[in-house]
Amino acid sequence: MEHKRPSAARTWVEVPSDSDFPIQNLPFGIGQRSGELPKVCTAIGNYVADLSVLAEHGFFDDLLVPRPVFHQAVLNDFIALGKEKTRAVRTRIAQILDDDLEEWDASELRDFFLFPQTEVEMLLPLHIGDYTDFYSSLEHASNVGAMFRDPQNPLLPNWRHLPVAYHGRASSIVVSGTPIRRPQGQTLPEGQHLPVFGPTRMLDFELETAFVVGKPTASGERVSTEQAEEYLFGMVLFNDWSARDIQKWEYVPLGPFLSKNFASTISPWVVTLDALEPFRTAGPLQAPEVLPYLRFDGEKALTSTWKPIFAPQMAWSTSLAVPISATCTGTCASNSPTIPSMAAISGWATCAHPGRSAEPLRIRLGRCWN
Amino acid sequence: MEHKRPSAARTWVEVPSDSDFPIQNLPFGIGQRSGELPKVCTAIGNYVADLSVLAEHGFFDDLLVPRPVFHQAVLNDFIALGKEKTRAVRTRIAQILDDDLEEWDASELRDFFLFPQTEVEMLLPLHIGDYTDFYSSLEHASNVGAMFRDPQNPLLPNWRHLPVAYHGRASSIVVSGTPIRRPQGQTLPEGQHLPVFGPTRMLDFELETAFVVGKPTASGERVSTEQAEEYLFGMVLFNDWSARDIQKWEYVPLGPFLSKNFASTISPWVVTLDALEPFRTAGPLQAPEVLPYLRFDGEKALTSTWKPIFAPQMAWSTSLAVPISATCTGTCASNSPTIPSMAAISGWATCAHPGRSAEPLRIRLGRCWN
Repeated sequence: MEHKRPSAARTWVEVPSDSDFPIQNLPFGIGQRSGELPKVCTAIGNYVADLSVLAEHGFFDDLLVPRPVFHQAVLNDFIALGKEKTRAVRTRIAQILDDDLEEWDASELRDFFLFPQTEVEMLLPLHIGDYTDFYSSLEHASNVGAMFRDPQNPLLPNWRHLPVAYHGRASSIVVSGTPIRRPQGQTLPEGQHLPVFGPTRMLDFELETAFVVGKPTASGERVSTEQAEEYLFGMVLFNDWSARDIQKWEYVPLGPFLSKNFASTISPWVVTLDALEPFRTAGPLQAPEVLPYLRFDGEKALTSTWKPIFAPQMAWSTSLAVPISATCTGTCASNSPTIPSMAAISGWATCAHPGRSAEPLRIRLGRCWN
Repeated sequence: MEHKRPSAARTWVEVPSDSDFPIQNLPFGIGQRSGELPKVCTAIGNYVADLSVLAEHGFFDDLLVPRPVFHQAVLNDFIALGKEKTRAVRTRIAQILDDDLEEWDASELRDFFLFPQTEVEMLLPLHIGDYTDFYSSLEHASNVGAMFRDPQNPLLPNWRHLPVAYHGRASSIVVSGTPIRRPQGQTLPEGQHLPVFGPTRMLDFELETAFVVGKPTASGERVSTEQAEEYLFGMVLFNDWSARDIQKWEYVPLGPFLSKNFASTISPWVVTLDALEPFRTAGPLQAPEVLPYLRFDGEKALTSTWKPIFAPQMAWSTSLAVPISATCTGTCASNSPTIPSMAAISGWATCAHPGRSAEPLRIRLGRCWN
């Protein structure tokens, strides 16, 4: 928690005051300019910074980061360097862009590595090995439970005791902006006993956040809630597209399948946990108290102000400790060193403070269902 | 169905009469001898045949298959050649091993490419991109439904209309013989209202078969039941390890998670669909009739005599048409060209003919639960 307050650093790059990409963010992604190969990039203001250019000018050589790692089509090799190295790269980028530091000034190179966002296509930033969707917010789980089962008893008995989750289809994850074809499948029309086949009439989404798990675990290895953060490289926004009519008919007893695996969309930028340090908070109190293996000390949730897509000033929070630790309780392997997995946090983004804001799932349902 | 009857070919390699590996099988796998790199191999009798040696002697050059494809640690690049090429390679191997053919005789090379099975470690043969578990046998689904829910109504209403399935964790798939650590997790003791944490006391398995899907589909692309076989490279045996006490508590409403993702075991040898041609059969009749998109013509099931692990002469059958087609109904992407996915067929192996044989799940449960 060394960076509890956002740094006061300023950059020599012009950054609009409402930008998502001040010098305090510096996320990682994969960008491609017309006629060029994909490169590892960061974002600053309205610009995409090509880190391969900085690497070729030697700006990362003293960090002992090999230059080819910035000439890749996914971030996997970069993330596999480990958090110590990737943190050092991000700190160096901040030095390069800092208005006050002369030692690492690259402003004379700006035309060679800074490109307007409009000139750079952002690609799917990761080859994702596995993906888990956690059913994580009380309000979201209650809403969905009421919709699919019993409005009087929307939560099943296990929900307050363990993080309910299921595996999604990793190969169906696409980058924001990718066209999605409306899925087809079986549905059971209201009041009928025989299903019909056709395109979904209840295409929905869930606005989520997802962790990028960048440090591998071996089969049988356990990760405590204390250790969990070491395994998390960063976060993305995650749109869990859902065909609710298909889901309602297919999901018993083994969970969602075709209703979810036609596509899930992630943001092209992976925001590091370091950048999110100033947003730590205590998170909601869990009641009843969970079993010891799920408990943790300290501020392990994140809070921020969501951009007003549907509801202004909607707050969200997400636990840093539980998902990876819960996944590695049962001794499940978390993929090979160079293949990150992803844990999406269902509903935290959509409804942490129902008293203060409308519930996007509900708003969206009202607009789109049928 | 050109190979409807097994060929009468004989090999110059000695093959015990009860061998799983006559010249009619010729599966593909990855073998590694002590001090050597992994190689693409086939099996004949009690021998493992190193195909990289045959490749380096030029036996596959006229098929325009690049030699490096046999020097890999997984079959992915080999499978990505496409079924036309991999079929030609298998036909050539049969020519090389055939007792009657002189043109491709490699018997003088035997000491350089044939090694006793005991001298070769068989590795996980695939890097698997995604994995789906289908809940596919009436008897199996009825048994499990009775165990977890209502013995009077074990089948849920959707079961007879669509192939119920869920996504598993691809990175948890290991090769036969890999030690498995007993998983831990939450369970709800009988008659209690609060869960406890600890090692599973109901470790179970499901003896399944799984398809290796070797031809990619794009997001939004649909595959009909007629086209489905083009996408299937071959089959493996599949052990779907299950912690039933953890599963019973965690699986509602989103399906199994930690109860299944600690490990699934596959056989090291991938048996091609070509080798299975003589075992085509009509398969069980589905009632009521399914919706048109799931119907198919012809013999799309497989039958064979299972080795008597628990029950002698247990027959099994598996549909070739439905799983891949069902997966690609909803427009889900089936991974990138070089990364096969896997579709396991739950229960077909365990209980196709309950009148003729005991039900392994039940036998195993009787032995291992608690």
